[in-house]
Amino acid sequence: MGTAVIVGAGAGLSASLARKLHARGHTIVLAARDTSDLASLAAETNATLVTCNARNPDDMARVFDAVDAIGEPLDVAIYNPSARVRGGITELDPDAVENAILVTAYGAFLMAQQAARRMLEAGSGAMLFTGASAGVKGFANSSTFAMGKFALRGLCQSLARELHPQGIHIGHFVIDGGISKTPEANTGAAQLDPDAIADTYMHFLDQPRSSWAWEIELRPWVERF
Amino acid sequence: MGTAVIVGAGAGLSASLARKLHARGHTIVLAARDTSDLASLAAETNATLVTCNARNPDDMARVFDAVDAIGEPLDVAIYNPSARVRGGITELDPDAVENAILVTAYGAFLMAQQAARRMLEAGSGAMLFTGASAGVKGFANSSTFAMGKFALRGLCQSLARELHPQGIHIGHFVIDGGISKTPEANTGAAQLDPDAIADTYMHFLDQPRSSWAWEIELRPWVERF
Amino acid sequence: MGTAVIVGAGAGLSASLARKLHARGHTIVLAARDTSDLASLAAETNATLVTCNARNPDDMARVFDAVDAIGEPLDVAIYNPSARVRGGITELDPDAVENAILVTAYGAFLMAQQAARRMLEAGSGAMLFTGASAGVKGFANSSTFAMGKFALRGLCQSLARELHPQGIHIGHFVIDGGISKTPEANTGAAQLDPDAIADTYMHFLDQPRSSWAWEIELRPWVERF
Amino acid sequence: MGTAVIVGAGAGLSASLARKLHARGHTIVLAARDTSDLASLAAETNATLVTCNARNPDDMARVFDAVDAIGEPLDVAIYNPSARVRGGITELDPDAVENAILVTAYGAFLMAQQAARRMLEAGSGAMLFTGASAGVKGFANSSTFAMGKFALRGLCQSLARELHPQGIHIGHFVIDGGISKTPEANTGAAQLDPDAIADTYMHFLDQPRSSWAWEIELRPWVERF
Repeated sequence: MGTAVIVGAGAGLSASLARKLHARGHTIVLAARDTSDLASLAAETNATLVTCNARNPDDMARVFDAVDAIGEPLDVAIYNPSARVRGGITELDPDAVENAILVTAYGAFLMAQQAARRMLEAGSGAMLFTGASAGVKGFANSSTFAMGKFALRGLCQSLARELHPQGIHIGHFVIDGGISKTPEANTGAAQLDPDAIADTYMHFLDQPRSSWAWEIELRPWVERF
Repeated sequence: MGTAVIVGAGAGLSASLARKLHARGHTIVLAARDTSDLASLAAETNATLVTCNARNPDDMARVFDAVDAIGEPLDVAIYNPSARVRGGITELDPDAVENAILVTAYGAFLMAQQAARRMLEAGSGAMLFTGASAGVKGFANSSTFAMGKFALRGLCQSLARELHPQGIHIGHFVIDGGISKTPEANTGAAQLDPDAIADTYMHFLDQPRSSWAWEIELRPWVERF
Repeated sequence: MGTAVIVGAGAGLSASLARKLHARGHTIVLAARDTSDLASLAAETNATLVTCNARNPDDMARVFDAVDAIGEPLDVAIYNPSARVRGGITELDPDAVENAILVTAYGAFLMAQQAARRMLEAGSGAMLFTGASAGVKGFANSSTFAMGKFALRGLCQSLARELHPQGIHIGHFVIDGGISKTPEANTGAAQLDPDAIADTYMHFLDQPRSSWAWEIELRPWVERF
Repeated sequence: MGTAVIVGAGAGLSASLARKLHARGHTIVLAARDTSDLASLAAETNATLVTCNARNPDDMARVFDAVDAIGEPLDVAIYNPSARVRGGITELDPDAVENAILVTAYGAFLMAQQAARRMLEAGSGAMLFTGASAGVKGFANSSTFAMGKFALRGLCQSLARELHPQGIHIGHFVIDGGISKTPEANTGAAQLDPDAIADTYMHFLDQPRSSWAWEIELRPWVERF
């Protein structure tokens, strides 16, 4: 077992992922723009914390410096960050829109590039990217999120075609619905349970290369689509 | 644990599915147009065998008579049959084309209707349908298979929207590539391993209703797409 | 100018198509299951009427016998028939479902085969198929229509890949919304105007082979999608 | 007839568009990063030239200052710019990737925002965006172009849902293939003829709001897809 890096470790899904990867024996690196709330998760999973604005190439390089410092192969890289700006096209702030595209998609490219350099050397590894229904359907008054998540999906589909035959497994997860904060808040299972999402990510990691998925859509049973 | 029925049990994938479902404690019903080669699998998995041309409503009703005779709830129904006719549009035999559409898609409807009647009463259950890349991309000289597998995908997507909110989990699996007969025949993992496909089907069955997939695409790492 | 055949000539769209094709100088053949209401349209467009159940190979052959009897090249073949059965999966009548699939998709195959034999000999021609939003999205309680219209789309995509390089232009039109009966009934343009749809079909026929579309989605400006 | 603005006027397609829009009576504004080669086209179409790096908000604002200076309603806004960087994921220059995403997609947002402010006031208008097959399929070694063109498609689909019901027609054109420089260079019509593409753009502008397309894919008859 080698290292697993989670970028966007502040996302609700990340704690479940960190715990499951730690339980499997991976060494964990957690990267987030703001790591101040992540101390207890880091302690629990024996993780290295790195502060990182995902759209910043130098920040992303520092995340992978931390990976390299551990000295193990890089097995898993997970990208969770996204930024959205809601509103009609005429009301949007151009700077916020630019930032949202860069955080949601360009940062994923930056992680993929760093991860690919390390995984291609080993000839194995997996990258998982957390998408949204906005990546397959452009909703009204959501043009910014559509741009970011469509771009993320394009990146992943291109990387799957490029890297699968080189032994690197690429996953794009279309999360359609809200993610529950706690099991108690999720009466009727109307929101996605982060542990359940993480179980599907773990199953993806277990797929042998004869039978790889590249995209899996997850939503609560009662979610309209 | 209740009953699991596999229609199209002669398909390469079905033996893996039957073994895994049997190991989980399900009672197995195997349906196939020709059951003469299935005696040893039936013995191994303690399964009931039913002869069934999947496109025939009466045959399909008899499969579910066998399910009812067991007297347990119906947990799982899997549809594997398909028929294809290759060739340029001008060369195809209309009768063979009609049969291929009916076996590939209409038979899936017949199974879904029988299974839904039973699962809706219980308020739970899962139906899994084996699709192909032909269901998402219409290839040249493959118009018949495109019709059948596109229709199957349309059925599954419609059923997911209709039955998910009623507690029935619908899965459409896009199998892109050849399925290996034996591990020895699969050097380099260039074909899908039936056990690996079946593991993803089992994971699908394990998903809690907060986080359901409806479509999963599987292909060998080296397959072009 | 040669012959244009319209199968499903009872559809609301067909009168507009027949008039525009007639105005361009095509000789018109109108095929419908019931031709009793088509006498005045046939007179107006100087068309040959043929009774045809589109899912019946012999009927379809007779339509093209009528085309051959005219003695001109076949330029255009248009397929409009569809059948739908609404309702939850458990309530549907299997015979009606089978018929709907065959009318919506298999009949299109039958027309395509007859048309391809004639067009390939000439090295040119166009086939246009009227689809629906049900062909790209499977709605709840609409599994039958989803099967039929998905299958039609698969046929068209396959034929586009097969026949475009042989000089035959294939068009699949995703009509999303109701078609208005009369301009007066269409206040606010909330329904598709059949003349407007037909104009897009005519534009499709005008595309030079350097720049061919294969699928065009049309809906009223206020239609949700 | 009011004003039509073409952003990315250096693209091969733009001259055909400018001529056809001028012939219809529109006043033309041509914007390009480098306008030095556009003097004769501007003279021929009586167009205003504006220098504009499409990803720069201030530059885009100046384009629409030029539109406003004309004093007519804005009928048409067309976005053609794109930037691509080819190569495997590990070789790409991050700055070039960021620029490519911003030129291909963010600049389209900037144009859409400026155009929407003007068109919504009038309650009519059309925006057309030139996409590519890279926007619907992410190819290997083309992750940058995939990000940009997927993002553009997401923007357009979102805008179609948002602005169609407000009377603004949104078009996304998937151009699949090379665009020919001259008719002589296009033996066998293996490349897209810019005049033919422009004819489809003009047809799109002619569609009445009862029957609007939002996406049209165009490719040469012999192009594989």
